[in-house]
Amino acid sequence: MKLSEDTISKEVIYKGKIINLEKHKVKLPNGETSEREIVLHNGAVSILALTPNNEVIVVEQFRKALEHTLIEIPAGKLEVGEKRESAAIRELEEETGYYTEDLTLIGEVYGCPGFANEKISIYFANNLKEGKADLDEDEFLNIKKLSIDEVKRRVSSGHIEDAKTLIAFQYLLLNYNHSK
Amino acid sequence: MKLSEDTISKEVIYKGKIINLEKHKVKLPNGETSEREIVLHNGAVSILALTPNNEVIVVEQFRKALEHTLIEIPAGKLEVGEKRESAAIRELEEETGYYTEDLTLIGEVYGCPGFANEKISIYFANNLKEGKADLDEDEFLNIKKLSIDEVKRRVSSGHIEDAKTLIAFQYLLLNYNHSK
Repeated sequence: MKLSEDTISKEVIYKGKIINLEKHKVKLPNGETSEREIVLHNGAVSILALTPNNEVIVVEQFRKALEHTLIEIPAGKLEVGEKRESAAIRELEEETGYYTEDLTLIGEVYGCPGFANEKISIYFANNLKEGKADLDEDEFLNIKKLSIDEVKRRVSSGHIEDAKTLIAFQYLLLNYNHSK
Repeated sequence: MKLSEDTISKEVIYKGKIINLEKHKVKLPNGETSEREIVLHNGAVSILALTPNNEVIVVEQFRKALEHTLIEIPAGKLEVGEKRESAAIRELEEETGYYTEDLTLIGEVYGCPGFANEKISIYFANNLKEGKADLDEDEFLNIKKLSIDEVKRRVSSGHIEDAKTLIAFQYLLLNYNHSK
């Protein structure tokens, strides 16, 4: 079956700091018309960082959209024109102080494909060197370190609330599960 | 460190069919003010469905936000007032024709917590009974079935582009990896 939807017209509803919102009038595969609400985002990167002590670095951060804090692997938005791998190295250092260029791509996924084009790259970072964090002026977070056993417990108990973090933790358990 | 951001004022920018957009003026933990752009969504469910032949059901669907098709596990939006488990049973049957009440919750995650409150519940569905699909009028998709070995290949090669689907596939490999 042909699945694509042709764009008849686009309306820009909002142009913001982090996102833009558009409404597209589309022609459906059956010839009917419909409307699609679309959030445009520049993309993001996130990093599953394993310290020399085999601990995983997570950050606790208030997320206004949820009105509560969330435990996540370090992550951040792509700057305009920035390469994804460079952004991952930069974000890890800014948020945690750790530095590495030893990155492996775990995957690149859309978190909310029903309405948003945000693509997030998830990297595994190894061989970390310790340094000094340097947060953005509107960024506030607590750094925590989890043992691999703690990661396993949190995955098994279903208490990971962030999609990229759950993907990263499951990757770790599939590939580095030393306690098996 | 105190992380929460107090709301000073809210502006409703858009009220739509699937999402609303708001701009919140907030007081940051350091006392400064900032703005947060927030997409509000009613939530969604998705289903990792294993057929009696040990195949996983996926749907190929055009996603206008991405301007291409995406391979995903069956999923859909919560209707107003609907329970998540009922929505999962309904969406699986509507999209694939398969019916079951044998659901296990894999997790509940936010896909884009930086700007959106969409929470997606991911269920594992077993003991499926075959029936007849019944799609929404603006929904067009192709159904495919993947063997567990094919799921493993797609996860290893990093070719899963949808966050909930990658979480579900990794869950399957961590818990039902018969080919180990």
